[in-house]
Amino acid sequence: MEITAITADDFRRFWPTFKAVVEAQETYAFDPDIGYEDAYTLWCELPQFTFVAKENGKILGSYFLKPNAAGPGNHVCNCGYIVAPEARGKGVARAMCRHSQDQAIEAGYLAMQFNAVVSTNETAIKLWQSLGYEIIGTVPNGYRHKRLGLVDTYIMHKQLRRQVP
Amino acid sequence: MEITAITADDFRRFWPTFKAVVEAQETYAFDPDIGYEDAYTLWCELPQFTFVAKENGKILGSYFLKPNAAGPGNHVCNCGYIVAPEARGKGVARAMCRHSQDQAIEAGYLAMQFNAVVSTNETAIKLWQSLGYEIIGTVPNGYRHKRLGLVDTYIMHKQLRRQVP
Repeated sequence: MEITAITADDFRRFWPTFKAVVEAQETYAFDPDIGYEDAYTLWCELPQFTFVAKENGKILGSYFLKPNAAGPGNHVCNCGYIVAPEARGKGVARAMCRHSQDQAIEAGYLAMQFNAVVSTNETAIKLWQSLGYEIIGTVPNGYRHKRLGLVDTYIMHKQLRRQVP
Repeated sequence: MEITAITADDFRRFWPTFKAVVEAQETYAFDPDIGYEDAYTLWCELPQFTFVAKENGKILGSYFLKPNAAGPGNHVCNCGYIVAPEARGKGVARAMCRHSQDQAIEAGYLAMQFNAVVSTNETAIKLWQSLGYEIIGTVPNGYRHKRLGLVDTYIMHKQLRRQVP
């Protein structure tokens, strides 16, 4: 598996996965009706970095990294990860998360925060916990799950380094 | 005191207060070097609503209201409030917060969330608590306070209604 900066062509090939994930409304708080151009802007242009994981030229997943806030809050970053359905259970999310931590440290971030981990997404929660992320808060009924209705979301956080470099 | 939708002229008169608050780097995670046009976009154009509190034509403060997330997270709103230095201690923030809750309920939101209340901003925290907001999470070292260095931030939340209308 190689993880590289996303290209416009990579995103075109990732789009069916992106669309399926937002339409499912089980994990991401993105507009489920988002179109291709807006999705490209959101995933590839607004973040600081966006990467894809590939194997033999096939897109296994993608993630973005961006500051979670501006100015005096811009030492905490935020990432979002999506794995292609056919590539699940193979450690792609774990590999992308480790890659993102390295990128974040190199870019000078002190911590990484996930703002809305859907509480029913147990696979993701266990994975983040195994990588050192802690649940630091719970938003009651923070997400309208398509199948389950209102469910809680977790704020998860990991300190990456001790001091502003 | 009257609270009305902000106009471009209101923002022009509010700008010195806005600039002083972001430059102080004690309460807001906005770029302290933000310029007028970007500030107008951030405060008046990107949010769903922006209001000003006035008394005898003088701007006492302003707030914005927007969804805190998109799609399946867009039933939780987020607000930011700024009171002019000369108008502090007169209940302006309380009045704006009550107004924002009414607006949020009318717009169909189920809850309001503040993502980064600086833990040293005791006046604000006490005020939000008195209005029913609870601290639901703490981000360790979430804010680089200009005088105090790294300080924690709180996520605060209030349920506004029980069900999606």
